[in-house]
Order: sequence, then structure tokens, then C-alpha cells
Amino acid sequence: MDQDDKKGPAPSRRQFLTGAAAAGAGAVAASSSAASGPDPLITEVQDWASGLGHGVDEVPYGLPIEFEGDVVRRNVAWLTADTISSINFTPIHALDGTITPQGCAFERHHSGAIELRKQDYRLMINGLVERPLVFTYADLERFPRENHVYFCECAANTGMEWAGAQLNGVQFTHGMIHNMEYTGVPLRLLLEEAGADLSDVANKWIFVEGADASSNGRSIPMEKALDDCLVAFKANGEALRKEHGYPVRLVVPGWEGNMWVKWLRRIEVMDVPVESREETSKYTDTLADGISRKWTWAMDAKSVVTSPSPQAPISHGHGPLVITGLAWSGRGAITAVDVSLDGGKNWQTARLAKPGEKMALTRFYLDIDWRGEEMFLQSRARDDSGYVQPSKEQLREVRGLNSIYHNNCIQTWYVNAEGVAENVEVS
Amino acid sequence: MDQDDKKGPAPSRRQFLTGAAAAGAGAVAASSSAASGPDPLITEVQDWASGLGHGVDEVPYGLPIEFEGDVVRRNVAWLTADTISSINFTPIHALDGTITPQGCAFERHHSGAIELRKQDYRLMINGLVERPLVFTYADLERFPRENHVYFCECAANTGMEWAGAQLNGVQFTHGMIHNMEYTGVPLRLLLEEAGADLSDVANKWIFVEGADASSNGRSIPMEKALDDCLVAFKANGEALRKEHGYPVRLVVPGWEGNMWVKWLRRIEVMDVPVESREETSKYTDTLADGISRKWTWAMDAKSVVTSPSPQAPISHGHGPLVITGLAWSGRGAITAVDVSLDGGKNWQTARLAKPGEKMALTRFYLDIDWRGEEMFLQSRARDDSGYVQPSKEQLREVRGLNSIYHNNCIQTWYVNAEGVAENVEVS
Repeated sequence: MDQDDKKGPAPSRRQFLTGAAAAGAGAVAASSSAASGPDPLITEVQDWASGLGHGVDEVPYGLPIEFEGDVVRRNVAWLTADTISSINFTPIHALDGTITPQGCAFERHHSGAIELRKQDYRLMINGLVERPLVFTYADLERFPRENHVYFCECAANTGMEWAGAQLNGVQFTHGMIHNMEYTGVPLRLLLEEAGADLSDVANKWIFVEGADASSNGRSIPMEKALDDCLVAFKANGEALRKEHGYPVRLVVPGWEGNMWVKWLRRIEVMDVPVESREETSKYTDTLADGISRKWTWAMDAKSVVTSPSPQAPISHGHGPLVITGLAWSGRGAITAVDVSLDGGKNWQTARLAKPGEKMALTRFYLDIDWRGEEMFLQSRARDDSGYVQPSKEQLREVRGLNSIYHNNCIQTWYVNAEGVAENVEVS
Repeated sequence: MDQDDKKGPAPSRRQFLTGAAAAGAGAVAASSSAASGPDPLITEVQDWASGLGHGVDEVPYGLPIEFEGDVVRRNVAWLTADTISSINFTPIHALDGTITPQGCAFERHHSGAIELRKQDYRLMINGLVERPLVFTYADLERFPRENHVYFCECAANTGMEWAGAQLNGVQFTHGMIHNMEYTGVPLRLLLEEAGADLSDVANKWIFVEGADASSNGRSIPMEKALDDCLVAFKANGEALRKEHGYPVRLVVPGWEGNMWVKWLRRIEVMDVPVESREETSKYTDTLADGISRKWTWAMDAKSVVTSPSPQAPISHGHGPLVITGLAWSGRGAITAVDVSLDGGKNWQTARLAKPGEKMALTRFYLDIDWRGEEMFLQSRARDDSGYVQPSKEQLREVRGLNSIYHNNCIQTWYVNAEGVAENVEVS
């Protein structure tokens, strides 16, 4: 639909394209043809309809088409001192549905992504166990497997936004997240195999380490380890990619991504937590009074509008507009998402593409008739624990401005009359 | 676990690794260490644990790690006269879970995969409509969207097996299938937008064409078009790949892949089917008496063991073994999968990774204790219509030996004492 249509009458919900793309028999006209005459894309035979395309032997493993070359992970140069211990971001502004392809799923490494062959892989379970064991990759393949779709969110996602609107794009404000179908062995089975001491479970811990130089050690309560953690070797059906922990990573559903240890090398059963660097000086939240919150593992319910957004402006003029975004909760399933067009004064219930699933991304849609009015777009998630995603103001009241991690506040995009969106704050 | 373990005592279900991978404190030993001494992969610091890995700026769009270089689509040179009008196969022997990554999802083209920019994309709806319309890509983005995971199976999948066991690998016998999360607009909404004549729906049809040179025209009953067909632009969250119909393909849930027209260009509303080449001389099944079955759209319930299989032998010796595979039905949801180890004499109920979903792949597992006995491995799917997947014998009784398409019979893998698997027939 061309720009002229912006000033036209409001179309009914049943007639999305009235006056824009009428194609009469023998007088075919495409969207913007009123001024420019018949559309050659309709009236003339195109090269792709007269010649041959590409054969099936050309690309044994395919990549996105070149026209989608901007839908890639991106890093932010000033965010970290170098790109080895750094992060890049999922292009969620350009995705739809819920699955994140591995190829564009965000990466976070502490000493770079390593290359570790399956035959060189070893996983040790030791500590408070009857039988300290070392598993090869082939050993892991012999245990019963499960499949689950889970989101993985970095605790630092949205972390730059505490002090105000910093990054102008949902890829950068909310793109430290991905959502994949994992296949792996329940960690519980491996702990049982080693004869882990499961007496007084509430006071038992595991300490997990990766095979990379950072080792990225984290303590996990035994109750979580036994509940739903997976020792995973596939994501979205195929082997984990190098940057996602090939050949084996830990999956800790709903909990901060730093605990999903990649290139998983060792699990020690303990009766105390280690209080490692990654759970003391990092991945904790310093409150206004200078005291830090301890053990903030679960990612609270959160949502964001992915389109329109600064990287995904409205490009089609007035009339029907699909507002869409993602919602998730580390404490359970999303039950509802509300969307506001006016910065939180009025809310409408969005349509969920599917009922929310435990610790997985939920896609929401709100179909509106946009007449060029300015919008302050917000979304607000609710989960089955009864939790409601807070405003930035509410979050700051409790948490102050010293935090980096665990920012799950409501995001605002200002959309102007031209459909251009911008990261802003409302108060 | 090393080969010596093959003759050891049967491990209990709770002790998968007895005698193989004991790692005592201070005396760590890996799987095969009994004969060869301490495992340097455990006792020595490895390069990947002392050096730096790859940074986050290296690969904006990632590919599988080089060690997985054999997990790719493959074509079979003798199957078609050239690779432009041909097929390649999903490496299902090496996948797990249910999602198929686009990069290794099978391709089938009739005149090659074309490259068509979004801005050059047009979709015409004409014929028995009040308002013939041409939609641009941007127009389609304005309609309400849905997300669904569906399998797409070529009617010719397993087609070489009618006469006997032909292809030694599940990638080639059953790999003309993929399963993705599609995002798109319900076709019903576009037909309504054009004011399609919906009187006497049972006798209305649409004829759908692609923008490639083959055009691949197919007739689809209006009832199906209105029910669950999607005009899709995303698969697994991101844009369709070139080979999967970028920018827009039709999704016809449960029905043969040939109807899922790629590079969708035109939809004509009609009161008769066209009876095109693709639905008369092709994609029909000639029975024993020389008469061909007409309108065989839905893919009947089917399943196959993906591992162990000829391309995925048992490599780890005796003891616990995970048998896994896929099941699906074009008529609804899978309710159960039975597995036989003895060529169909005895059946065990497999564990479904999740309850079956309508017209989507279902992953099944059977965890057994394998002591080196020869197996004739089979799986048998049941769906919620009450249908039970037939044996090859049963299918031949009804269909004869003249068919190419719609072979959904039970597949048999013979597994020898060494764990090597082979495509065979049992009678």
C-alpha cells in the first residue's frame, strides 16, 4: 500500500486492501500502480519464471538468502573490552514465532567459544557421590532422553536500561535471549548413576564447570538439579553449535543464562555453595543501600514488543497493523500479555499465538487499525505464579539504580506519525 | 564404554557405567583407561582449557561446527536426471527432538530454487472472487498471523521401497520430511479479503501456483483452504530460506509436500479442480489393476526408527541402548508408537517425548538393555483417527507394486551382533 493511502478512509477489518491492490481480469494492477501504470511484476514474465533456479546439490547445509543479510547477531563494540569475553545479540526485531535458529541465537562467552570434539569430551561427576564417574559423549547417549523447548536469557539482558533509554533497538535491549528445543539427559539420572548423596537435599548443591579457560563455575541447588536440569547435546534437532557449547551444555530452565554452563566438564556434589566469582562479584544485584541480592537465579516474567520497534518501523502506511512481541517467565508459563498504546494508561489483552509453556518464549499479537497516531507502545507479561511485569519506576523503587542484571521492567517504544520508533522512558 | 564390556555382566538400569568409568579421588580414570592408564583428557590441562576461544564478532550467522560436517542434506545421483528438478534428503539419522533446522531440511524443486526479493513479490487472488487482488509482501504483513509446527513430507518419501529394500539409510528412505514452526497468515483471511465465492463450499476449489518456471500448479479443495492452510513467510522464527520458498510459501498441513507451493504467486478460486500434471500423471498411485487413485492428499500415519539405523549403528557395545525415531500423521495427532525388536512378532509401547500434536512430528524413545542379540527393528504409529500404520505386506495387498508415492509401511532395520544396521524386508 503506498503512502497516499495514509490519508484515505479507514478500511474495515474485512477489507485490508481496499483501493490499493485491485486486480481486475485483464487489467491487473499492483499496490502502487494507480499512478505508475500496470505493474510489470504482474504483466511481464520475469527471469525467475522463465529460467532455471538452483539445484539441490548446491548447498548441503543452507544459509539465509542474501536478501536477509542484515538479520544476524550483532555485538556492541563499547560494551566489553574485547570480543572474546563478550556478547552478541539475537535479531529479535526481525524474527517471528518462538523458535530461535541456532545460527542467529545470541552468544556470551567468558574466554571465547572453544572447539571440542565429541571424542575428546569428558564429563566428571565427583564430590559427595558413591561412585565418582567420568562420562564420555557415547556414555551420555545411552541414558534416557527428553525434549523441551526452553528460553535462555542472559541475566544482563536489558541491563543497559536501568539508568534510562540507552540502546535504540530491541535486538540490543532485549536480544540476549534465545529459545530452542533441547534434547538431552535429565541431570538427575547422571547424579543417580554416580550415587550422589541425596540425603538432606535442601542443603545439597552441585558446582558445575565448563571446559573452556574461564570454566565459568556456578553453584546450583540440588533441588533444581534434580527437578528439570538437562545435560543437553542437541538444540533444534541438531548438534549444539560451537558457540552454544558443543558437544554438551547444561540447561537450567528459567534460570539465568550464566548457569547454563557450556562445554560442561565437571559436576561436583557439595553440601555448600562455592560462592564463585560468577555468583558474587558478578551476576548479583547491588541495591540502593549498597547491599547485594544473593542467589537471584530465576528470570522474572518479562515481555517486549519486537515489531514495531526502532529496528522495525511501520513501513506500510495507515490501516491494519500487526503489533507483535515475546513474553516469558523463569517461574512458569505466561498466562497473558497486555499491550498499551499510550504508555501504560490503557491496556488491551493481546492474543497469544499458543497457550504459554513453562519457561519458553510465548509469541503475542495485537492487531490494530493504525491511523497515524503517535504511540507509546508497551507490553506487560503475567505468569501463572500471579506475577505481573513491573514498570521501570516500580522496579527502580525496589532495586535502585546500581544494578546491571535482572532488569525485567516494561519497555516503551515511542512511535511517531511516520511509523518510526524510538527507545524512550515514560513516567 | 570399551569393547571388552560387551562380554561383561548385565548392568542394572541404575548403573549404566559400572566398571567402565570409575573416577576415584586422586586416581581419575576415563572410560577406556583400564588397559591404557590415566586418560590425559582428564589428567592434563588441554589447549581449549588454557587458551582463548572464538570471539562473538566472528560469525554473524553461524553454521554447524566442522566436526558435524557429515550432517547435511544429500541427494542421490541416480534418482533424477539432473539436480535442478530433483530432491535432497534431511539427515534424520543424526537429528533428535522434532524441529528440523532449515539449513538441513530436505529440498524438492521442479525447476530449481529461485531467488525472489520481497519487493518483487506479488500474490494474486483471482477467479470466483468479488475483488481480484494483488498482495505485496508488505500487504501480507498486515494480516493477523498464526504460528504452528507442522511436518512437510514429500509424497515420494519411501517411494523407492515399494519393490523391496533399496536404500541403505534412513536419510534416504525417510528423509523427504521436515518439521518447522511456521508463521503466516491464514489463507482464509486472504480469500475473504478478495471476497471469494464461498457458496457451495464443498464444490469449490483453489488452484495454487508458484513463481518459478515449473509453476507447480495444484488444486486444493476450498474446505481445506479455509480450514488450516497458511500463507507462510517464516519458518523456525526467521525468513524462509530460498530453497523453502522465500519469501512466501503455502503450508497445507498434513497433506503431501507438492501442494505446499513455494514462491506462491497466484491463487485462483474455481468451481472445478484443474487436474494439472502434478495431480494426474504425477502424485497419483497406480494400483495393481492399472487404475490410479485420485486425490490422495493426506499423508497417512507413518513412523521410522532413526537410530539405530544403517547410518547410525550401535557404537558403544552392550548394555543400555536408546532406540529412537519419528512418527507423524497427516490426519491428526500421533497417539502411540509401538516398537518391535523381532520383526513384528512382539511389540512394546514406546515413550513419546511429548503428547502428539496435530500434523507435527512426534519423537519416540524406547530404552532397552541390549546384550548383542540380533534385532529386526520396527516401529508402528497410531493416530487419533484410529489408524494403525500397516506392514509392507498389508500395504502391497491393497496397493500392489506399481506405486511410487504414499508408501507409509512399517520399515525394518536388521541389526547384527556388532550393532551394524541394514535395510531389509521381513515376511
